[in-house]
Amino acid sequence: MDNHQDHTLEFEANGKCFPDAAQDHDGVFLKKAVEEAYAAVRCGDGGPFGAVIVRNGEIVVQCHNMVLRNADPTAHAEVTAVRMACQKLGRHELSDCEIYASCEPCPMCFGAIHLSRLKRLVYGTEAEAALAVGFDDFIADAIRGTAKYQKVHLEIKKADDLMMAKFQVNATQIPSFERELPPQRKTFAQT
Amino acid sequence: MDNHQDHTLEFEANGKCFPDAAQDHDGVFLKKAVEEAYAAVRCGDGGPFGAVIVRNGEIVVQCHNMVLRNADPTAHAEVTAVRMACQKLGRHELSDCEIYASCEPCPMCFGAIHLSRLKRLVYGTEAEAALAVGFDDFIADAIRGTAKYQKVHLEIKKADDLMMAKFQVNATQIPSFERELPPQRKTFAQT
Repeated sequence: MDNHQDHTLEFEANGKCFPDAAQDHDGVFLKKAVEEAYAAVRCGDGGPFGAVIVRNGEIVVQCHNMVLRNADPTAHAEVTAVRMACQKLGRHELSDCEIYASCEPCPMCFGAIHLSRLKRLVYGTEAEAALAVGFDDFIADAIRGTAKYQKVHLEIKKADDLMMAKFQVNATQIPSFERELPPQRKTFAQT
Repeated sequence: MDNHQDHTLEFEANGKCFPDAAQDHDGVFLKKAVEEAYAAVRCGDGGPFGAVIVRNGEIVVQCHNMVLRNADPTAHAEVTAVRMACQKLGRHELSDCEIYASCEPCPMCFGAIHLSRLKRLVYGTEAEAALAVGFDDFIADAIRGTAKYQKVHLEIKKADDLMMAKFQVNATQIPSFERELPPQRKTFAQT
């Protein structure tokens, strides 16, 4: 990961690597994500989680958890970073970008990372680190594949056929995305 | 689900049920969610998905997929509804609310529903309906428990111990959320 004997990193203030530190590209950006995690708590914005999105070796956005600041339970660092990067780049997919997260993403954030088509994820601490500082077992359970949505406080109900028949909605009757989307918006496959 | 012989529903324009239709509370709100799904495509805002959040029998917000309109891959109907409801109610948890979704939520949306502590989810069509109209297998795979984040285009890398040691970050050194959060913000358990 690092060619330097003393394991130090060289990087410019703007996050672009010096040529001889190019191989430690990951260390540079992960460090920024960890700094954001500390900043989240220092500012009182949210939990200790940070994320950085990088394109062609340069930082597009660096963010942290904003759940408290924005009163928004979806404003985890990674989701915030995806939203901000899309806004900055003026598009809803990030297939030429990488994301650096201070901690293993939760299922919601994994979903956002997948849906935005980020090509690479580098993360720092394991999900268990979030548990150690008092977050619930949602993250670690999901990572271990033992998550059950039903086990939480949430009651889940699937509408019965009679109810859905009233709406005249079924798989074939939902408006076809490909068919009905304005032509200029047919350039991507998923929303 | 419905005491009426003709299977019709009675409801006021504002979504509040008439007393004799109280048992079909779910049908009323699910219908609104389905109407939103149609509206999403009609307006060109995004894919055919709608969601409604209800509190004490009244609609807090009704939304649809806004991925195209906002150039935001996280703006699925359910995530949008959670964000808008929190904004409207001025808090980041919705434990006294229910959500109605036109389709089985994707993993990102399930995550948002869990994190916002919604107490109840009612959904219409199965995830397979989304597949049928051209969405990828992310949703259905996750619902069936066969999802593997690694199987997609995404490369995932966990930082090695050497890299993390440089940042002096580990589970015990991440700022403790409980310890460091300003006192006025200690009233909730998760961000």
